[in-house]
Amino acid sequence: MTTLPFDNDLKLFALMKEQLYAAVLCDALDQVGYRQQAMRADIRPIYPEAVVVGRALTMESVDVYAPEENVYEHEIAAVDSLKPGDVMVASTQRSTRTCVWGELLSTAAMARGANGAVIDGYTRDVRLIQKMGFPLFSTGIYPVDSAGRGEVIHYNRIIECGGVVVSPGDLIFGDYDGVVVIPKEALRAVVERAVAKVEGESITRAELRKGATLRQVFDKYGVL
Amino acid sequence: MTTLPFDNDLKLFALMKEQLYAAVLCDALDQVGYRQQAMRADIRPIYPEAVVVGRALTMESVDVYAPEENVYEHEIAAVDSLKPGDVMVASTQRSTRTCVWGELLSTAAMARGANGAVIDGYTRDVRLIQKMGFPLFSTGIYPVDSAGRGEVIHYNRIIECGGVVVSPGDLIFGDYDGVVVIPKEALRAVVERAVAKVEGESITRAELRKGATLRQVFDKYGVL
Amino acid sequence: MTTLPFDNDLKLFALMKEQLYAAVLCDALDQVGYRQQAMRADIRPIYPEAVVVGRALTMESVDVYAPEENVYEHEIAAVDSLKPGDVMVASTQRSTRTCVWGELLSTAAMARGANGAVIDGYTRDVRLIQKMGFPLFSTGIYPVDSAGRGEVIHYNRIIECGGVVVSPGDLIFGDYDGVVVIPKEALRAVVERAVAKVEGESITRAELRKGATLRQVFDKYGVL
Amino acid sequence: MTTLPFDNDLKLFALMKEQLYAAVLCDALDQVGYRQQAMRADIRPIYPEAVVVGRALTMESVDVYAPEENVYEHEIAAVDSLKPGDVMVASTQRSTRTCVWGELLSTAAMARGANGAVIDGYTRDVRLIQKMGFPLFSTGIYPVDSAGRGEVIHYNRIIECGGVVVSPGDLIFGDYDGVVVIPKEALRAVVERAVAKVEGESITRAELRKGATLRQVFDKYGVL
Amino acid sequence: MTTLPFDNDLKLFALMKEQLYAAVLCDALDQVGYRQQAMRADIRPIYPEAVVVGRALTMESVDVYAPEENVYEHEIAAVDSLKPGDVMVASTQRSTRTCVWGELLSTAAMARGANGAVIDGYTRDVRLIQKMGFPLFSTGIYPVDSAGRGEVIHYNRIIECGGVVVSPGDLIFGDYDGVVVIPKEALRAVVERAVAKVEGESITRAELRKGATLRQVFDKYGVL
Amino acid sequence: MTTLPFDNDLKLFALMKEQLYAAVLCDALDQVGYRQQAMRADIRPIYPEAVVVGRALTMESVDVYAPEENVYEHEIAAVDSLKPGDVMVASTQRSTRTCVWGELLSTAAMARGANGAVIDGYTRDVRLIQKMGFPLFSTGIYPVDSAGRGEVIHYNRIIECGGVVVSPGDLIFGDYDGVVVIPKEALRAVVERAVAKVEGESITRAELRKGATLRQVFDKYGVL
Repeated sequence: MTTLPFDNDLKLFALMKEQLYAAVLCDALDQVGYRQQAMRADIRPIYPEAVVVGRALTMESVDVYAPEENVYEHEIAAVDSLKPGDVMVASTQRSTRTCVWGELLSTAAMARGANGAVIDGYTRDVRLIQKMGFPLFSTGIYPVDSAGRGEVIHYNRIIECGGVVVSPGDLIFGDYDGVVVIPKEALRAVVERAVAKVEGESITRAELRKGATLRQVFDKYGVL
Repeated sequence: MTTLPFDNDLKLFALMKEQLYAAVLCDALDQVGYRQQAMRADIRPIYPEAVVVGRALTMESVDVYAPEENVYEHEIAAVDSLKPGDVMVASTQRSTRTCVWGELLSTAAMARGANGAVIDGYTRDVRLIQKMGFPLFSTGIYPVDSAGRGEVIHYNRIIECGGVVVSPGDLIFGDYDGVVVIPKEALRAVVERAVAKVEGESITRAELRKGATLRQVFDKYGVL
Repeated sequence: MTTLPFDNDLKLFALMKEQLYAAVLCDALDQVGYRQQAMRADIRPIYPEAVVVGRALTMESVDVYAPEENVYEHEIAAVDSLKPGDVMVASTQRSTRTCVWGELLSTAAMARGANGAVIDGYTRDVRLIQKMGFPLFSTGIYPVDSAGRGEVIHYNRIIECGGVVVSPGDLIFGDYDGVVVIPKEALRAVVERAVAKVEGESITRAELRKGATLRQVFDKYGVL
Repeated sequence: MTTLPFDNDLKLFALMKEQLYAAVLCDALDQVGYRQQAMRADIRPIYPEAVVVGRALTMESVDVYAPEENVYEHEIAAVDSLKPGDVMVASTQRSTRTCVWGELLSTAAMARGANGAVIDGYTRDVRLIQKMGFPLFSTGIYPVDSAGRGEVIHYNRIIECGGVVVSPGDLIFGDYDGVVVIPKEALRAVVERAVAKVEGESITRAELRKGATLRQVFDKYGVL
Repeated sequence: MTTLPFDNDLKLFALMKEQLYAAVLCDALDQVGYRQQAMRADIRPIYPEAVVVGRALTMESVDVYAPEENVYEHEIAAVDSLKPGDVMVASTQRSTRTCVWGELLSTAAMARGANGAVIDGYTRDVRLIQKMGFPLFSTGIYPVDSAGRGEVIHYNRIIECGGVVVSPGDLIFGDYDGVVVIPKEALRAVVERAVAKVEGESITRAELRKGATLRQVFDKYGVL
Repeated sequence: MTTLPFDNDLKLFALMKEQLYAAVLCDALDQVGYRQQAMRADIRPIYPEAVVVGRALTMESVDVYAPEENVYEHEIAAVDSLKPGDVMVASTQRSTRTCVWGELLSTAAMARGANGAVIDGYTRDVRLIQKMGFPLFSTGIYPVDSAGRGEVIHYNRIIECGGVVVSPGDLIFGDYDGVVVIPKEALRAVVERAVAKVEGESITRAELRKGATLRQVFDKYGVL
């Protein structure tokens, strides 16, 4: 088994993006006792090939109903604080009223080196963001601006996103099967198990293709 | 700034289709005080490139539970009354039982010169309609016929579609970001502002790409 | 009209896949008095070209909250009992917690000759399954394993899937417009009517394209 | 067993109100093969003692968004056509916008001799209606008038109310356990079985109270 | 008609509580063009006789997932700022996780002279609050404390509660039919019309009881 | 502080019923780190005075769509195995189709000495059960029998009920504020803290009534 670059985040994320996927990371999280780490199924990538890996920078938006002073203060600070390898993770208290992300913020985030964004809420400018190759996950697409509709109230606190509690610095992995949160303290254990599992999977698949029954494969390898 | 052809609907719609998009129209609507003009996020185009621009011809369907006489009367009259540049806007009182639109009605609508359709309800024959290049937006896909399930009760009255009140003759604009309703009395003001905004947007984007922070861009231009 | 191979399931399914589609089968079911045979609109194909035709083998999963002995017993038995031309039809009592299907089961099902699967629940490994060309329909995509989350309690009993009651052996037809259940006792009547209807449809479409109104077409042919 | 007055509706309804209840009527409906006759559980009586029995007069309301001419036309005609022993059964296509019933209509309905009302929608003036002793069932309480919000489009057609298809003249029975629809053609069979079942129930109850297990009671009487 | 004490809030509220009700205030609001002032039907009084009248003091809570410093800061400040005749109007961004109100806050609010509370969210200690005679309206009852679950982020800003936008100082009226928001600038016009309407209502009711049809009453008085 | 009878379940439950309530038990559970022990707010007592305390006997029902052999087998066994002080805790996978509890089962359960029942699902015969004084909590009232609609698949396994995971033998406490699950291993710690908290609460309440602000009370006692 390859030595994994746990001392270098950017290398680690690149390796994970290449070799791992959301489903195998869920299985590895199960193995080490974290069983509620997959975000709700309605958080979807905006294009099928989108894969996001990185450290969570969290942000919380709430609905508002009147223009206020300095509405963009926390949002600007949050985006400007993104560092290479970060993933913006934003929640909106399940808003269907505002749109918390779009092309401008994607451009700013990419310029800071961010690896993508996961929004429990709506996004806009989706076709442009897809062209930029910015891996964005959201619950829906909606063309409105956030001004007077939603306001970021804080960032880098513990939030809930897609039904999972996310702490700043947790690792986020998202692909077409969904978005998974790996608590930072479990990162090494989870990635090691996931890499090992990927290497073993091709055997059962090959036997099934040759005609083995599930019963035979399960009795032999003890897993499905 | 180009002179806009407000005296010629078909030219205006062609120009809007080429230069504008739903998000910028929402921003312009916000500027002139119309803040609830974007339809719910579950009204989606049936193919990603679908763009619809035109005047609303409205139609309302309700669920029924028994065959009645003349069930198609209002529906036939509505579709046959479509004129070039019109967009069929149909609502179904949130039905999950019937399917109010399909390939036959799309064919008839295109033959009348209609520019597309927006359905707060289900559609069928979706792959055929996509091949025809008819820009159709709906809340879902469902294979049943409407006979004995839903019935059009009137057309060209004020309706609600996707959470927005639509009057006959309002301008409809839909693309991958969603569907926007521009009240007819606000059309000139909205389109002028939208065209102006599009021309200014490339500057902030360019600065962000060069590495400017959101804070710097916002302080300089006052917008996000 | 072609003689239909009702004495040979695999030939019949191939012919249906080539010539028929979900919407026309719904219309034929309506004609013979079966009016609630289309599954809910949130059961969608995982790729646009997916078409599934075959006999239903049913399976029911329920949510569980603790590891149990022999959790895979019924699931393994169900998948291993699939025969050529079968379609796995699985229900989960509307679970948003588990994921009842994935790449391994798809591989096993294909190896048995199954024609596809329809899941009123979540699936994972979706991009791999798409590459395999296995026509899979589901309500969503979710990356978790079923162990400790859901458990198959029986198979080949009458179940409800997508709002339709499905008996083992009923015929399943699914395409981009949705999934339809044809009760086995109505198969011949439905397919004969559907084939006839397809052959007649091109006439009305042609007249509409030439400019006939819906009213004229309806008065002439009595259908829409 | 008492002879039941099937030739006199008002006497029959009085006897049913005194001796029967919704649950036993559901069991009798099951026995004769009608298994989907209980309205959704969110249709509730406005006071615990409310019991309604009578013939359905149906009415359908849909949401509207603009004042129209003659908005009350069908609603007035429907209420004015109520006869002694009738029950108003109104549906609103699941509206949360309008309020289709209130004290004035209750007063008018009582003056015509109606036995109550069942509304798949909202009602208002609830405390006054309770004081009048008018047995009203609804999905909620909401203080708005219907003008400009909802409009009755027809009455005495087949409708769906609370998930059950109701034909004019079907028998409605509602108490604290819910509202049941007895198709008019099944009335005699259902009421006869229900009366018989009520008379037999006290035996099993008595044995259970004396300490018999469910197993013993079930083995002895074959029912639960 | 009585002279209404618009110069003395407490007297005015007492008079309104005695003579008016939510439904007639909705009708009066309709007359002066405010048509979206009734809160959602799931905001219910905790006991049937509860009636609340007073000026809104608004408060907004959001879900949190970790203990924070000074969690009660805004909530304490809001409750301590209540003045005689005020009504606490609190929103929770549709939370099903926290419980924003209970017996202690009710006691504190009553001690300040507040007239009641309207919560778009959950409450607890409901039987105690009922015994205190504190008119409380909420969407549900839930036994948890807010600490670590929800946090008040601001008070006395414009909020949305039960689907209605509420400004600090708007008049709140709630009874068994629901909760209505009267914008402060419309108070005089609305109350005057409501008082007049109440005085006229008994006539139509009396005629209906005597046997007049709705048609006759409507043709004579032009209202329903 | 009184010595609590932890060695005698029935005495302990009686004492808890007299002195404690759901909200204070939630606070005590929070103190010892169990923060997700309150069932969803839609599980309600069938009458306001209902209080239930006892050990959970769990049962799981799933929807079925066809009559099967021995449908009552597990249900009969579960109810017959109830012992004095037990509380039936039943889940239905969120069914809106069946009714898992009624008067007969209540009678049988009371005869076995059970202290009540908590159903994440529907019940019937509600007025009779109220008259029996059997404390029953459920999500709704529905008049149908379970035969052919739902089937108990197992009992005394770990289940989820109202969003809380319940193990056989956990302590259940329900009153008008809701239903709380106390894991058996935490019972002593939770009850001791709850009793202590109740004794201290009257002080803060008394100070607030005398006019102290929340700020003063909070600064003095450190709790709200």
